[in-house]
Amino acid sequence: MTHGRYASIPEHLKPAGTPGSTLLAIERKKASFDTKQMSEYLYGKEYLEKDAELVALLTSDTTGAFDKSNWNYLGRTEKFRLALKKDKRIAQLAREHGWDRETINHVESLCDFMGPFSVHRSMYLTTIDNMGTEEQKETFLVPALRYENIGCYAQTELGHGSNVQGLETTATYDKETREFVLHSPSMTASKWWIGGLGRSATHAVVMAQLIIDGKRLGPHPFIVPIRDPETRKPFPGISVGDIGPKAGLPGIDNGYMLFDHVRVPHFNQLSRFAKVDPETGKYTPPANSALTYGTMTYVRAGIVRGARTVLMRSVTVAVRYCAIRRQFADRDAPKFEGSKPIETQVLDYTMVQARILPILAKAYAFHYTSKYMYELYESCMEGINRGDLSLLAETHASSSGLKALCTIEAAEAIETCRRACGGHGFSAASGLPNFYNDYLPNVTWEGDSYMLSQQTSRHLLKQMRDLKRDPEGTPRSFTSDYMRHYFGVANGDENAAATRHEVNYSGDLHDPVWFIKAFGYRAAWLVDQTLELRDGPSKRSWNSILPELYRCAKAHSQALVIYNFAKAILNDSNLNSKPALRTVMQQLFLLHATHTMQQEGAEFISCGVIGPKQYQLLSNKSQELMASIRPQAVPLVDSFALSDYLVNSALGSSKGDVYEGLFRHALNEPINSSRWDVNVEDLETLEIDDSPALAKAKL
Amino acid sequence: MTHGRYASIPEHLKPAGTPGSTLLAIERKKASFDTKQMSEYLYGKEYLEKDAELVALLTSDTTGAFDKSNWNYLGRTEKFRLALKKDKRIAQLAREHGWDRETINHVESLCDFMGPFSVHRSMYLTTIDNMGTEEQKETFLVPALRYENIGCYAQTELGHGSNVQGLETTATYDKETREFVLHSPSMTASKWWIGGLGRSATHAVVMAQLIIDGKRLGPHPFIVPIRDPETRKPFPGISVGDIGPKAGLPGIDNGYMLFDHVRVPHFNQLSRFAKVDPETGKYTPPANSALTYGTMTYVRAGIVRGARTVLMRSVTVAVRYCAIRRQFADRDAPKFEGSKPIETQVLDYTMVQARILPILAKAYAFHYTSKYMYELYESCMEGINRGDLSLLAETHASSSGLKALCTIEAAEAIETCRRACGGHGFSAASGLPNFYNDYLPNVTWEGDSYMLSQQTSRHLLKQMRDLKRDPEGTPRSFTSDYMRHYFGVANGDENAAATRHEVNYSGDLHDPVWFIKAFGYRAAWLVDQTLELRDGPSKRSWNSILPELYRCAKAHSQALVIYNFAKAILNDSNLNSKPALRTVMQQLFLLHATHTMQQEGAEFISCGVIGPKQYQLLSNKSQELMASIRPQAVPLVDSFALSDYLVNSALGSSKGDVYEGLFRHALNEPINSSRWDVNVEDLETLEIDDSPALAKAKL
Repeated sequence: MTHGRYASIPEHLKPAGTPGSTLLAIERKKASFDTKQMSEYLYGKEYLEKDAELVALLTSDTTGAFDKSNWNYLGRTEKFRLALKKDKRIAQLAREHGWDRETINHVESLCDFMGPFSVHRSMYLTTIDNMGTEEQKETFLVPALRYENIGCYAQTELGHGSNVQGLETTATYDKETREFVLHSPSMTASKWWIGGLGRSATHAVVMAQLIIDGKRLGPHPFIVPIRDPETRKPFPGISVGDIGPKAGLPGIDNGYMLFDHVRVPHFNQLSRFAKVDPETGKYTPPANSALTYGTMTYVRAGIVRGARTVLMRSVTVAVRYCAIRRQFADRDAPKFEGSKPIETQVLDYTMVQARILPILAKAYAFHYTSKYMYELYESCMEGINRGDLSLLAETHASSSGLKALCTIEAAEAIETCRRACGGHGFSAASGLPNFYNDYLPNVTWEGDSYMLSQQTSRHLLKQMRDLKRDPEGTPRSFTSDYMRHYFGVANGDENAAATRHEVNYSGDLHDPVWFIKAFGYRAAWLVDQTLELRDGPSKRSWNSILPELYRCAKAHSQALVIYNFAKAILNDSNLNSKPALRTVMQQLFLLHATHTMQQEGAEFISCGVIGPKQYQLLSNKSQELMASIRPQAVPLVDSFALSDYLVNSALGSSKGDVYEGLFRHALNEPINSSRWDVNVEDLETLEIDDSPALAKAKL
Repeated sequence: MTHGRYASIPEHLKPAGTPGSTLLAIERKKASFDTKQMSEYLYGKEYLEKDAELVALLTSDTTGAFDKSNWNYLGRTEKFRLALKKDKRIAQLAREHGWDRETINHVESLCDFMGPFSVHRSMYLTTIDNMGTEEQKETFLVPALRYENIGCYAQTELGHGSNVQGLETTATYDKETREFVLHSPSMTASKWWIGGLGRSATHAVVMAQLIIDGKRLGPHPFIVPIRDPETRKPFPGISVGDIGPKAGLPGIDNGYMLFDHVRVPHFNQLSRFAKVDPETGKYTPPANSALTYGTMTYVRAGIVRGARTVLMRSVTVAVRYCAIRRQFADRDAPKFEGSKPIETQVLDYTMVQARILPILAKAYAFHYTSKYMYELYESCMEGINRGDLSLLAETHASSSGLKALCTIEAAEAIETCRRACGGHGFSAASGLPNFYNDYLPNVTWEGDSYMLSQQTSRHLLKQMRDLKRDPEGTPRSFTSDYMRHYFGVANGDENAAATRHEVNYSGDLHDPVWFIKAFGYRAAWLVDQTLELRDGPSKRSWNSILPELYRCAKAHSQALVIYNFAKAILNDSNLNSKPALRTVMQQLFLLHATHTMQQEGAEFISCGVIGPKQYQLLSNKSQELMASIRPQAVPLVDSFALSDYLVNSALGSSKGDVYEGLFRHALNEPINSSRWDVNVEDLETLEIDDSPALAKAKL
């Protein structure tokens, strides 16, 4: 380890006790299954090979664009600079290697910090592709794919978020000149939060209220050139800039933009669906909005898969670190090394297990949920293409509810894992603080997770109304199935019963089908109670029952997660042919199910699925399961096969070199390379040696 | 508003609709009580006057040391520089104005970002004061109070946090030279996380394992000079530096330190309690550790008061912003302004109320809890001084549990409030992201909140054992009182009953005494269940019941919070003489009590205090209460009397200029003052005009 001018450590020192690498090796020997087989089961061989290939490419790139090692020491401007460099390099490599969209997404997820081109790559290109005519695609898509134009997607305004109908920006059609005039009537009309707009974008898809002959026709997308690609100056009438620092995502230049009567040609209105006749100004509305729902489902499927990966990554860090970290000797049966008590691995504390092992189980649960969402998307799109819109409502409802549930739980999981790492979780070297701050927008964007669930519950209420009116006529679906089962129980159908009588010992909590029934029953019961508030004699206003609606959506989504996890245990032939995998997966399922049921205990008791005795049994069962899963914890996170490059954590490295990693992080700190005068008489701090290069540490 | 070179907005634009200032004025007119009277009731006139005086002094200081407006744009090094300047300026002003410790703490809390001298001011000075002899105080305290020395408190090591007994650093007594030899035997022995050590400190209190004649005598404090105050170079044998970036607290130089046989004179062992005879090396252990518990209680009382202020500040931001922000028209009864639907104030959504109004109530609850903790500390210290240690166990147990409960809930509250601010909550301008990240260490330090609660439950188990053995002999205390009541119910004492039979309508949920009984009953029931696991036939190991122990501690602490809030409602003559304050405070109490009981519903149902029907009534009642409190929300946060300087949020300013504030934050962003070349061919980003001065925005 090199000695810096003001900071150093002696080279010969090693961590005390058993090295982290040995501890991880011991943990890995406990595996009751083949981690490589598990990884292949989760992702498929092809994906894993591609991942390894891309990681090798990025880590051997010599431009420095993919180097994460200095990120934590940089200020916002420098971070933006590095993220821009990274995004440019991805564009170059994509061209060189002929990467498709999926590969680019894969690379972006490995690089971790999002940059100024991410919205260009996702929203800008997608919107033109979906909403533009062939001619518009030729004009706008081709230069954008070549990165000659950089685009952004300008919808949100300073005063208007989720409520798109409330947008203030107007696009008034001028028949004389065949132009649309874009205008911002007030300060709150300013576009805001627009990724890539702050400094990078040359073009924007602008969502604006279309006005023709004084008639407001709702928000429509327009392509607006905003900056001269050569001089980088905004075009006349456009005020634009970066909105300033955020909780996270410093690499993105989220921007604002105001229009002062900015004119674009008629051609710039994306007119695949809604059209304006250039001469008469006659407006033709879009045929149907089914495709919009398709896109939304696809985006949300991506968010749910993202939530799964968030859980995987956080719990990889927490499990590995807690397997290496030791704290306090066992109270009842201390062990000794000579006269010195050996401290317990933190992962052996049941209170630590109770915090992080359910997250481990949930990562597997969300894996199946995200697979289900992509399948749902596929079959929904297939239907739409056949003109069959019957799956649309169910798909939209489930994707909204799952987006809300998974993002809220993923954000919480990062923080739970960070805290489980104790003091060192607070170090940026743990990787979790940045990760958390960058993840947070997921809870709010693509529909605020607390409000979005209304989309789910609206469908649930409607479904139950339909079933009550016409039990036979309602088509089968996940939702109508569990609701029918609920009515069956209410009507005394013994076959349908999902009651406490089936569970008398913790050993009775073993059957995936019981959990499917129980979660469905509780969801249906909540919907029934809420429907009574809305349609019953009290005729409660929608607003007054929002907390109840939120609970319905949450219960429905939890039931979906349980259902899809259980289905895999029961029917996945790929899993059932591998008994070692299946055994540990069953335990993970039961942990997820008992833990979730316990957390929602009051509702499960209230609806009669369990009683206080069963509530206690859930706790016993989940503790038993955690004791069984504990020895498998390191192999189970190893199975996620996340590269050290992605995990990017001194605490969660697969090598187990926790303390060496923390020291590397310390020695690179720039304030270690300068002198700081603490003399109270001089108010200005004196720096003598402010060397620009960071001290290079070798361990 | 001035136009920057690359960013500007048109000067004439105003936010659409009713201005924020008007909306807040309307809200303030709804007050059912006098906010000034409420503030005086909470803090006393004297405190409020002092606060106003100090805010005026800091905001008019011309050195720039207290200017928060650029903080968000600075990198870590610049933040450290500004924090150092601020701490120096506080030292100068303290000298000039003769400030006492309390005033300095007050100033630090207003300044918000902690700096490199905070540990010097708290832990270093306090430790010497408490543990040093008169001669040692003369030698070490005098220059430290003059800031000629800057000290830190070096206890935690890289491999050792909460377990002080496990520290590796040794201090071996050398009788020949009458010196202690400090040494770090391994890498994990490195001092770590030490505030002020990274670059600032000249001295450290070092906790090290005392070794005399080969005998290990446990950790003891030593004063070690670490850097030459003139050259700032570490003394020989000392490796020291900053540990690098963290999730928050960038203004503090948390440091590491390793010793290679560093010698300090015998005099440097702080020897008020534990002594080493200089000649013989004979060791005299400290008389008793009662005082340590006193200090810990005092520190924890401060943490609980801090948690209260955290709740106040977060909810001030969320309530004010949600009163100004509008989103979507009402679904059932839309209102119109001409043909345009008027959007609803976000604060009117019951789902938003359900998230932030319980935090408002909790801020008041924690206010009384923190008062109680200071009283507890006083009476405990009084007892210790009289030689009466009977209060010690109860005080230690309660302060540990409350520290855990309050810090976890305060951290969660910041994030809940941030999310309630929607997208703009993610902007650094909201003030909440930094605030959250800086607050997080409170959950971990001074005893990890998840492990610390063992201190509480150990006492609870012991207390119940004592009571079962000798119901009459156990002295009265908060804990033994609620446990006796629990046994009374179990033995069929009708007077003691706290059962569901008393609550049949939501209107029955009105009596503070019922809630005191109910929370106490549930805590006692949990302790009884847990005691059965530990002492009963299953003889469960301590480790295996940690989750149950955690629940006991949480229930006990929640019962304490309820008890102290209820006591104020019932007995506080100062409150009872002001009916307007008392009325709203009763509602806040009931909201806090019903909301908390609902959250812990499964346990309350399990122990029989309520049934599923009452669980539903709790939900109805808390919704009724939120509807009543909603019009008082802005006046209630105004009553916290937090200065705009402290709140430091564009969203939470008392003036209501939300959108203007967000624009100011945008125009100051440094990346708006330079040109960014996005040309993909050039990998290095080009900056043409990287002016060092930030663009100055005027609105």
